[in-house]
Amino acid sequence: MARYAVGIDLGGTSVKAALVHREHGVVRHTQRRTGAAHGPAHVLDQIADAARELLGALPPGEALAGIGLGSPGVISWDRTTVSRPPNFPKWETVNVAQAIGGMFGVPVTVENDANVAGLGSAFYGAGQPFDSFLMATLGTGVGGAIIYQKRIFRGAHGGAGELGHMTIDYEGPYARSGVAGAIEAYLGIHFLTHHARYRLLTRETVLHEMTGQDLAGLTPKALHEAAVQGDEAAREMLAWAGHKLGAALGSAVNLLDIRKVVVGGGISAAGDFLLDPARAALRRFVMPGLQAGLELVQETLGNEVALLGAARLAFERFEEG
Amino acid sequence: MARYAVGIDLGGTSVKAALVHREHGVVRHTQRRTGAAHGPAHVLDQIADAARELLGALPPGEALAGIGLGSPGVISWDRTTVSRPPNFPKWETVNVAQAIGGMFGVPVTVENDANVAGLGSAFYGAGQPFDSFLMATLGTGVGGAIIYQKRIFRGAHGGAGELGHMTIDYEGPYARSGVAGAIEAYLGIHFLTHHARYRLLTRETVLHEMTGQDLAGLTPKALHEAAVQGDEAAREMLAWAGHKLGAALGSAVNLLDIRKVVVGGGISAAGDFLLDPARAALRRFVMPGLQAGLELVQETLGNEVALLGAARLAFERFEEG
Repeated sequence: MARYAVGIDLGGTSVKAALVHREHGVVRHTQRRTGAAHGPAHVLDQIADAARELLGALPPGEALAGIGLGSPGVISWDRTTVSRPPNFPKWETVNVAQAIGGMFGVPVTVENDANVAGLGSAFYGAGQPFDSFLMATLGTGVGGAIIYQKRIFRGAHGGAGELGHMTIDYEGPYARSGVAGAIEAYLGIHFLTHHARYRLLTRETVLHEMTGQDLAGLTPKALHEAAVQGDEAAREMLAWAGHKLGAALGSAVNLLDIRKVVVGGGISAAGDFLLDPARAALRRFVMPGLQAGLELVQETLGNEVALLGAARLAFERFEEG
Repeated sequence: MARYAVGIDLGGTSVKAALVHREHGVVRHTQRRTGAAHGPAHVLDQIADAARELLGALPPGEALAGIGLGSPGVISWDRTTVSRPPNFPKWETVNVAQAIGGMFGVPVTVENDANVAGLGSAFYGAGQPFDSFLMATLGTGVGGAIIYQKRIFRGAHGGAGELGHMTIDYEGPYARSGVAGAIEAYLGIHFLTHHARYRLLTRETVLHEMTGQDLAGLTPKALHEAAVQGDEAAREMLAWAGHKLGAALGSAVNLLDIRKVVVGGGISAAGDFLLDPARAALRRFVMPGLQAGLELVQETLGNEVALLGAARLAFERFEEG
């Protein structure tokens, strides 16, 4: 029984990594700058460097299940290659599993970062009580995962779970994907701050003091802080975003008959200012026959959920031989 | 090896049934009036009567795999009971499998009618080439099914596939489910004819001659016929509907990464007048990374797809023992 695995979260700015004990969770963290601008070889070096440190920290006599890695971009069906991750220049298709696995002689499993967060939530986070649930990750973009019977539902080609690109308004604003009214066009971090800035410019709100002239320094964090202080304008804005999230989640529930939802990622820190309106909308957009047991909860593990999910990939691969 | 099964399609107005040969398809049809107004016991009698006729037609020496039945309403996870089918008065929860199975001493399997149509398409219809696909059934309402790796994807509780209740406009018109902007609020037969009537009332169109004063007799069939005759107004209306269907399907593809779509049911008879605009919209609403292999085809088997799918339920149950 291998009780340890390394989980890696590859992001546009940093490579986060952890040595994970199957029951006790993260036992050691490390981090490197991604340096995506220097190309794939450099990024692989950063990943390898982080992995090397953690492998060196494996307690004597303990076996390693392997390395799991969550990544942006398109992942191949066999979970080895990463294609065209956004904001990684010169990166076409790279066999990350082979490159890293070859260095350390351990199995490496790659999966989409949003799916990895879902898996982490299922085994270590807010998703633990649920056999099946939808995970929405609100970050730079809006990621999603379908956890079905405690496993990642991968669809026909491995790309399932793109909640952020479901439309809630076929004539709505365009997201980066070119999809009109995609939920990311409301809740993606750049879109949300853009909407908020113009919506609140003429309103009385503490955000004017907090974020400088013309709300130029507005962030989701500032919105949340203003809401906590009782600022009505900030609360309205978060409710506006939550409502849209709930509508998209309602569509997903109707399609999948999976009635549990976990929401994580940066903006989810706004908590019930965002999530209560999302819950209300979810209930309105789910058809009556599928309402029983409907539930939306917040993931509170933060970034750690991605590391734990990545390690879980390695444990599963080890178990399956 | 049991080469025959009985497939039954329970509808609001008629009970359709067929004796199905595993390879050759339907070998004998029959039909009864449902008489839903007379209550569940009467409906069960009608089903039994149809089944009895077909069981009597089983060639000597041949074994029956069982009976499969597609039904509106909510189906239990164990595929035995039907709860609250719309337009069936006095019907709460009825164990159809037990009632019919007990009469004939054969296993009976019940499944949602849209899922059954998907299964029929997968094994006998336009879905045959696809391992996984989405099925949209355009009838009184808009039904849907997810066929994943040649099986019905049932979700966590058995109710998955409700494409018709996905929203494409969170502030749009209400469908019967109370969901705003649900695709059924545009393509459901009553909604579509209502939209069409008002949209075309002031237009020059052959529909005025075809459907009487104020377009009171407008039907999807009339729309289709007018479109075939070259009527621009009718073609516009079908394109309007197809565009909305494509947007909803795009959301479903993004969520599931299942890139094949089969469209069946009454209104789908309008063929490419409806489906070409649906294809164009589908492509616009699917994110770039999931576009490869995207395909939307028409189911041409008509009602038979439901009977074949119902029989297939019985074959699968028999194989699984």
